[in-house]
Amino acid sequence: MRIVDLIRSKRDGGELSREHIEAIVGGYTRGDIPDYQMASFLMAALLKGMTGAELAALTETMLHSGQVLDFSSLPGRKVDKHSTGGVGDKTSLVLAPLVAAGGVFVPMISGRGLGHTGGTLDKLEAIPGFNVNLTLTQFRDILAKTGCAMIGQTAEIAPADKKIYSLRDVTGTVESPYLICASIMSKKLAEGVDGLVLDVKTGSGAFMKDQKDAEYLAGLMVDTGKRMNKRMVALITDMEQPLGNLVGNAFEVVECIDILNGKGPADLRELCIELAAWMFLFGDKAKSVAEGRKLSGELIANGKAMQKFREMVRVQGGDERVVDDVKRLPQPKNKVDVKAASAGFVGAIMNEKIGTACVVIGGGRERKEDSVDPAVGIVVHQKLGDRVKAGDTLVTIHYNSDARLAEAQKLIEAAYTIAPQAPSGPRPMVRKIIGGDAK
Amino acid sequence: MRIVDLIRSKRDGGELSREHIEAIVGGYTRGDIPDYQMASFLMAALLKGMTGAELAALTETMLHSGQVLDFSSLPGRKVDKHSTGGVGDKTSLVLAPLVAAGGVFVPMISGRGLGHTGGTLDKLEAIPGFNVNLTLTQFRDILAKTGCAMIGQTAEIAPADKKIYSLRDVTGTVESPYLICASIMSKKLAEGVDGLVLDVKTGSGAFMKDQKDAEYLAGLMVDTGKRMNKRMVALITDMEQPLGNLVGNAFEVVECIDILNGKGPADLRELCIELAAWMFLFGDKAKSVAEGRKLSGELIANGKAMQKFREMVRVQGGDERVVDDVKRLPQPKNKVDVKAASAGFVGAIMNEKIGTACVVIGGGRERKEDSVDPAVGIVVHQKLGDRVKAGDTLVTIHYNSDARLAEAQKLIEAAYTIAPQAPSGPRPMVRKIIGGDAK
Repeated sequence: MRIVDLIRSKRDGGELSREHIEAIVGGYTRGDIPDYQMASFLMAALLKGMTGAELAALTETMLHSGQVLDFSSLPGRKVDKHSTGGVGDKTSLVLAPLVAAGGVFVPMISGRGLGHTGGTLDKLEAIPGFNVNLTLTQFRDILAKTGCAMIGQTAEIAPADKKIYSLRDVTGTVESPYLICASIMSKKLAEGVDGLVLDVKTGSGAFMKDQKDAEYLAGLMVDTGKRMNKRMVALITDMEQPLGNLVGNAFEVVECIDILNGKGPADLRELCIELAAWMFLFGDKAKSVAEGRKLSGELIANGKAMQKFREMVRVQGGDERVVDDVKRLPQPKNKVDVKAASAGFVGAIMNEKIGTACVVIGGGRERKEDSVDPAVGIVVHQKLGDRVKAGDTLVTIHYNSDARLAEAQKLIEAAYTIAPQAPSGPRPMVRKIIGGDAK
Repeated sequence: MRIVDLIRSKRDGGELSREHIEAIVGGYTRGDIPDYQMASFLMAALLKGMTGAELAALTETMLHSGQVLDFSSLPGRKVDKHSTGGVGDKTSLVLAPLVAAGGVFVPMISGRGLGHTGGTLDKLEAIPGFNVNLTLTQFRDILAKTGCAMIGQTAEIAPADKKIYSLRDVTGTVESPYLICASIMSKKLAEGVDGLVLDVKTGSGAFMKDQKDAEYLAGLMVDTGKRMNKRMVALITDMEQPLGNLVGNAFEVVECIDILNGKGPADLRELCIELAAWMFLFGDKAKSVAEGRKLSGELIANGKAMQKFREMVRVQGGDERVVDDVKRLPQPKNKVDVKAASAGFVGAIMNEKIGTACVVIGGGRERKEDSVDPAVGIVVHQKLGDRVKAGDTLVTIHYNSDARLAEAQKLIEAAYTIAPQAPSGPRPMVRKIIGGDAK
């Protein structure tokens, strides 16, 4: 069958077979199919959608375009977590050592910040010496020895995704739940995990502002993982405001150390414990989520999670003394407060603007090739529902260069809505759970 | 604005401005926009459609990518006809001399056969010596002198369409009424005509089997032409069976000579006169379609149309003696009859199969680079509603090589449905008229 006929079939709403999808993805990765045919196919797939079988075939073909790690020789379950990204979303730095401390292997391949969201690799690199650029052999060795390891994407993992993602970026085909699902899952399943806990963010600081969109993507990812016999769950979680109080690379390391010390903000602690609980369940270290929560609390209370964090930092070349003295992390030179113009309650936060403000002061990147300033960040003093007086500090911006400070201040000011009354009703961190029942 | 944002806008159902469309088409034609972005845009346009304003902008930008002929120095109106293609669809060879004989200039740029349909250029080239490869200067000179001229597409006309069409062909984006409209209209309006009569075919031998699709395309083309102040009409015409009785290049020349001699099959004569009538109306040589019909009949009856045909053939290098002796046209060596297996009435003809049978014996091309055999063809003895006895000849295949004769025979056999009763109701040639009212 000619590729153009496969494109026409997808265009007209037909279902492609596994062989057809392999022909497209394989042909494109090998260079037999030109960019323009793949671009047309991707747009058709975006606008016409894909069936579960098509999506599974797409994901598996992309997965098997590169190395799929096999940690079956390591005793016990391997489980990872993936977040769709948000503002102050730093749970990976807590979860990897916490869950490894409980005896579950956590092989974690993460990304860098893009857009208004931060990235795990950038946060880890705020720790002096921490090396995320390990080979897959080093990754395996550290995982076997430490129980967790955190690295960046390598060329060996899902090369089809790398090539397809670059094309999607310039052809207006990024925003498809099907293509997003295949991209995420092909990379995460290459980690050789038995189970995967998805943290799918929704709200003003997430890529999916609408909860329905988040649930739809979550459903696709859970189904796709289950078709490959993985234990899958997706927690739809709140991203209407920054997670925790600190945004920025070194700042977020500080807040993770706080959590591992049994302190830190309640919302971040709650989410870390919920996600860890599911990871323990999938890792056969807990019989229920409740038991997983309990185990998580114990591992923080008895210091084992923090001990594992120190070990992970050390074996990956980082300065573990940051745990005892966070001033060893990069420090910003200046700070400025952004204050409330009127009295009332924090009624809404346009959270993407908070993330963008952090990018603007150098804490994130606007283009892939930009470097980040690990020291800068934003301290959030007032969160949703908090009562404020006129002149109260909403956030403090910690910066080095004031080149774009005014822009950041304006973003923050525009982000906060002060309402005459407190928002009503509870504000659950986990809004919905999808999957979780399968083997 | 970045091109990727324009693609995303179209993808999400937005309307692009004229400047945006010029940026896309101009950028692509200049080579600034790569094939993969254009491919993605074309698929989005196919699946999301285009507004009238977008389509006009697309058509005009493609039109002005090359030379737009200007015949305003010639005294009187210039009018052309375009057909969307069918089987035995040979009206252009009658219309150009007939309408020119009535004093309207007919500058006609035509195409070759592709798929199951024939092409005007291939038919003209069946006349020994006839040259369709004129320069635009020669085209103008012959038009000025003769009143009509018939050539093929040149590199100067709508180069954007040439580049975009090649990309559509390999990216599954041919079948869009919007893109088809822009492609046709950008080429036809480059002819510098004041009015255009469209013959939009529907039925089993047309590209648009469904009359609704044909009407939709016709509406788009009429609206687009009117936006550019052209007199526009579209006749939705029947293509459920071959037009006339002869299919094949030299055969179709013979049938056109018959019509110009006041003979020939009634359906072909009727359609030629209807189309010519509209061309005379747009050419200010008739005050109504009825008057146009009358004028057409007169010009055939008094021999002036035939005299113009001879002149056109001669000035374009062809052997005008074919008019008096059609045996001077290429002659096929062999023939075979396809007979009715049972008695009854011709209830349906899968007309595309008739056209394909003609291609299979060499009368058309399956790939652009194929050559055609001008001599071969199909004589249709039985048409819709005709009563047949078992063993009656349905069609006669005239061929040179029997390499694929069996295949052609099978196609013809499969094309005919013999029903127990005659199809009921009238079978109008012109099913609907769209436009026609505008200046």
